[in-house]
Parts: sequence; structure tokens; C-alpha cells
Amino acid sequence: MAQSSAMNGGDGIYSYLKNSNLQRDGLNAAKNVIKEALLESLDLKTLLLSSPNSTATTFTIADLGCSVGQNTLFAMKMLIETVEHKHHNISQENSEKNRIEFQVFFNDQTANDFNTLFASLPPQHERKYFAAGVPGSFYGRLFPSSSIHIAYCSSSLHWLSELPVDLVDINSPAYNSGRIHYTGASDAVVGAYADQFEKDMQVFLTARAEEIVGGGMVVILMPGVPDGGVTHDVGIALTFLGSILMDMVEEGILIQDRVDSLNIPHVYPSVKQMKRLVEQNDSFEIVKMELRNARSDMEAPIDIESAVMHLRAFTEETIVNQLGIEIVDELFKRAVKQKNKFYQMLHASGIEIGAQFFSVLKRKFD
Amino acid sequence: MAQSSAMNGGDGIYSYLKNSNLQRDGLNAAKNVIKEALLESLDLKTLLLSSPNSTATTFTIADLGCSVGQNTLFAMKMLIETVEHKHHNISQENSEKNRIEFQVFFNDQTANDFNTLFASLPPQHERKYFAAGVPGSFYGRLFPSSSIHIAYCSSSLHWLSELPVDLVDINSPAYNSGRIHYTGASDAVVGAYADQFEKDMQVFLTARAEEIVGGGMVVILMPGVPDGGVTHDVGIALTFLGSILMDMVEEGILIQDRVDSLNIPHVYPSVKQMKRLVEQNDSFEIVKMELRNARSDMEAPIDIESAVMHLRAFTEETIVNQLGIEIVDELFKRAVKQKNKFYQMLHASGIEIGAQFFSVLKRKFD
Repeated sequence: MAQSSAMNGGDGIYSYLKNSNLQRDGLNAAKNVIKEALLESLDLKTLLLSSPNSTATTFTIADLGCSVGQNTLFAMKMLIETVEHKHHNISQENSEKNRIEFQVFFNDQTANDFNTLFASLPPQHERKYFAAGVPGSFYGRLFPSSSIHIAYCSSSLHWLSELPVDLVDINSPAYNSGRIHYTGASDAVVGAYADQFEKDMQVFLTARAEEIVGGGMVVILMPGVPDGGVTHDVGIALTFLGSILMDMVEEGILIQDRVDSLNIPHVYPSVKQMKRLVEQNDSFEIVKMELRNARSDMEAPIDIESAVMHLRAFTEETIVNQLGIEIVDELFKRAVKQKNKFYQMLHASGIEIGAQFFSVLKRKFD
Repeated sequence: MAQSSAMNGGDGIYSYLKNSNLQRDGLNAAKNVIKEALLESLDLKTLLLSSPNSTATTFTIADLGCSVGQNTLFAMKMLIETVEHKHHNISQENSEKNRIEFQVFFNDQTANDFNTLFASLPPQHERKYFAAGVPGSFYGRLFPSSSIHIAYCSSSLHWLSELPVDLVDINSPAYNSGRIHYTGASDAVVGAYADQFEKDMQVFLTARAEEIVGGGMVVILMPGVPDGGVTHDVGIALTFLGSILMDMVEEGILIQDRVDSLNIPHVYPSVKQMKRLVEQNDSFEIVKMELRNARSDMEAPIDIESAVMHLRAFTEETIVNQLGIEIVDELFKRAVKQKNKFYQMLHASGIEIGAQFFSVLKRKFD
């Protein structure tokens, strides 16, 4: 079964390192709301009390699905500055100053390019945290019990742990013919994706509930849709790629079975759906949950060519595994050439471009 | 200034992964004495009390200079089994059972091949610990204060943080002409290496004193020499390589300046010297410190060809940086051809082959 894949490693022109500006933009736009939510609801006094007595207290942050590049470093710096700011305020109130040391765990799948990530870290004396890399899927335990204060998940939770088998079972109503995603597909396909997403979210929340200390937080950013909606612009981009692959089938370059068996394991949830899942899990209080826009400048024109490059950075590994590198090269050559079609598809959908699910959850005390 | 280099990455025929049997042999030989020392002196009750109350207690182990391959996995497994064994005994005494979770930090320099290391980890459900990689030099802080229970350093502490500048200063009495190591060199060269080693050890012990909890342990294995001695077989191997390089100088393939400026940053300490350094630092109690033999079977003949391959795995990066890959290929081709000369040098030295410094230190309570 295809599993969600790592982003393109290294620092070449198709690498995630060089093509993650959209995520950066999304974080920039969300920065202030994240800071605000943390400053308001982070119960730093309780969190620091739960640490053993020592010359300094350790505050641990995990970036789940960090990939490589500057985005994760930027986000971790922002979170640390926010906690420091809050700590400074508390220390002034109490006229005591307990030193905090930060430890950041950079998590991604084992296939992530940790060597490149580690090489991009500022040297120890120039950063405010001790760094560690943690390989493995966040759909499962990664850390000891009650050891994490903030878990941060940006552009990562919309990747499923695996694809529902029904999508490639020709006898199932959820067989996803001629498409590589649920966008625009039958209800059965949409449902199969949603079921997997909901299972994954329960596994995710259960694992985090064990790892995060009482009062600790989860920050989530990912593509999201309005309540009752299905279509997100990233899904349209995948539909666009699927349609180009089907052109190649018609031209005899590719057999349709190959396209049918390729499905990108992405789901974009709604607030209503996520709220239900978090309440069902019952370990987290919802501090904040909303649909935002990920673009820092919503008036700016959409750079379709960058969007296609970005698409390549995050889908290439999945597609190469299934279709081979020659097909991928041809696919993206065509995608750049047909970028106007992508633009028209976005326009025709009538959706708001850049919708982003944002949530801050707080671990309940047992 | 040349710094100590990472071991050869990947899994090719010259990789450290495929050429670290000597270290494995050293660990096998030391396994029982390590277990014994830990079982005797690990104050598990106190260590576990220092953790915050939770459903489980975290026991943290750091492998400092882990490199890649099975040796680090094997060593971590051995340490965990030893702690579990001790924990089992305590739990029986007290008829209570507080669950321990293990977290292992695999540390090595940033240039270490962490991708290969992570790929070699057993899957989470098949190992007894949460794994994290920590890039950076252990001559400096790597972890938050009081966060480590056992630090393990095998075949790593004999690498200097940097080379003393005097070795390449033609006006210094410590200018190391025609050699690539202190073995067989002038007292000034030996002294310059020793000074750097002693400085490094103080930095190492100071950083570990901050990171290791009171009662926590440091386990050290590395090549060592008898009190008053200087020569170790690894040093003879380096002298052997140096002599081949000087042959190449005489044949006009290489200019001598290049050989003079190459120095392998290795020091093999004696028990007396290390005892003095640990006492000077004053943060650790010496539980055990002795010179052992690293060979599990001291009667077995020495496999010189394997020894040369092993030499390549740990010196190649340093030598390539200085002399280029063509010279290194030629050097090791000649080394294999002249292995009898290496054997004769070992024999002529009269030293015991495989001498290993072994120590267990215990962090004093502040």
C-alpha cells in the first residue's frame, strides 16, 4: 500500500527546500494568531512546575512533519520567542527568574532528508535550543510519556498514514478511476478518504495525548475546507495533474491502470469535522479552531508557475514511485505548459484560494 | 584548522557501516564489565525519583559519537537490558512496578550520515526505546541541563576537537615533519597532542557534568596505553600510513608539505592521565577505570587486511580533505600490498595489541 512520502530532499531546483515558499507564506500569515493563542492560553507556570528541580527547566517543542528547509527553523524560533515572552512576563510578576532551556525535536518520516536538515541548523551557540531529529510516523508514538510541551504540525496532518485499499479495488464503488485524488470524484471515493483521515486523526490524537504534558498544546496548520465543502485548491491542483496523466493515457504514453492505481494521500478537513474528532478523542480542549486564509497578501495575483513547482516538490516522490521518473518529467513539463488550464479550473471552482485550517488544542489534565 | 571528521557514510565497501567490526569486537569484550559496573553502581531508585510524576518514568541514554551501523544499536540495546534488569530487581524488592520508558539520543557530528543511521533503526514497535538523533560536537553542550541518565562514548573520545596549530607551524618544535600522528614523533609533538586532549577532556567533562543528572553515569571505551606509555597499535597503523605517504614523496608523487600538514587528530590516553583529568574536573566519581584488551579472543591471529580496511573507514575523510581522493586510493592500494610491513611494525613495537581504556564515571550530587 502506498504510504505518504517524504518531501523532495537535497537542495536541487525541485527540492522541497527550494519550493516551500507557500508553506512559509502560510506560516507568516498565521504567525500572529499562533502567538496570540499561545500567549493567552499557555499555562507556563504549571508546565514549568511539572519539570524536575534543576538549575534550569526544559521546555520541549516538537515539530511533527518538519521536512527540511527554513520553514521549520523559522517556526521553532517563533514558538520559542513566544514562550520566552510569556516567561518574561511571569518572572516579572513573581520577581523570580527560573531559567528555561529549550529542546526542539524535529520529526519527520525516516525517509526525510535529516542530513540536509541538520546541516541547515544554525550552530549551537547561535540558536536558543538544543536540537534533535526524530525519525518516524506521527501516526504512532514518537516520544516518552508526558515529555512534550508544544507539538507543532504545519502542512503535515493532511497526509494520510496510508491509502484506503478500496481506492484500488476494481470491485469497490470507491475504485478511483481516471483520477489521482478525491477532488471531483464520487461520494464513495470521498468517503473512503475521509474514513482513513478520521482513523488517522484518532491515532494521532491518542499518541499526542500520551506524549503531551497536562496543559501542553498542539498547534495545527493545514489546508482546510469550509464546513460541508470538499474542494480545496491543492485538490484542484491534483485534479489538474490527474487530467494531464489521462491525456497521456489517451495518447498511448501511459496505460490507465497506472493512473487508476495512483492516489495522492491528502485530505483537507473542515472545522466541523475536526471539532467532532477532537471531542470524540476527549483528551484535548479546543482553544482555537477556525478556517483562515494562508496567503499573507490575499490581493496578490497567484503565481501559477511557482504553484506547479511547489506541487512537484510535494508530489514527486509519490508519483515517481508509482509511474517512474520519465513520466514525472513529462507530466510537469506539460503542467507548466498548461498552467492556464489550472488557472481556469481554480477560477471555475468558485472556492477561496488558500483556505487554511488552524487550531490550537490544549491537553486536558488527567 | 582540520577538525575531526565523520566516519565514512553510506553502506559501500569502504563505509564505516561495513568496516566497524573491530569496534564491535571491542564492545563484545567489554560488555560484561560494563554490565557489571552498571548493575553494581547505578542508583536507579534515585535516578527514577528525579523524574516528574507521570504514568511512566523516562530513562535517557545518549550515545556520544555513535557513527552509523549496528554497533550503536547493539550497545544501546545492551545498556537498556542492563537497566531493565536492575529495575526488575528493585521492583521486586519494593513490590511496586513503575514503568520505565527509554529515550536514546544518537549523537555525532553534523556531517555524520544520520539518514543511514535512521534507516538502520528497527521499527518503533520492535525496539524498546524512542530514538532521536542529535547533531553536533560533544566538545560542547548537546542536551538540556540534568536531562541524561547514561552517556556512552565508545571509540569516540580519542578524536580531538581540533589539531594544535603548532603541529603545522614550521617554526615550532612541535612541527610534525614526515609523519601524520604523534606515534614515534618528538616529545614536542606528543606534548602538543596531549595538551589538546587534556583541554578537550575538560570541555567534555564540564558539558557532561551539566547534562547528566546526579547519580547518572558516563561509560567510556577508547584505545588507551599503559601508564607512561605512548604507543598504541592504532598509532602504529597511522605511522605505517605516514611512511607510505613519505614513499610517495620520495617517488615525486606528492610534495612533503602536504604530508607535514596532515595530522590525524587522535590521542590514546593512559589510566593515570585520565584519572588526573577526571579528578581535576571534580564533577564525577570514578566507579571504574582500567586498561583492558579490546579483543574478544586474544589468541586469534590479527587479520591485517581487515585492519587496513578499517583504517580506511575512519581516516579516509580526514585524508581526502587534505590530499584528495586519488592519493587516498593509491595510499590504501599500497597499504594492502605492504601489509607485512605493518605487521612487522606492530611486532617490533613490543606492545600488546588491542589495549582499550575503559571507565565508568558517576556524576556527583551537587
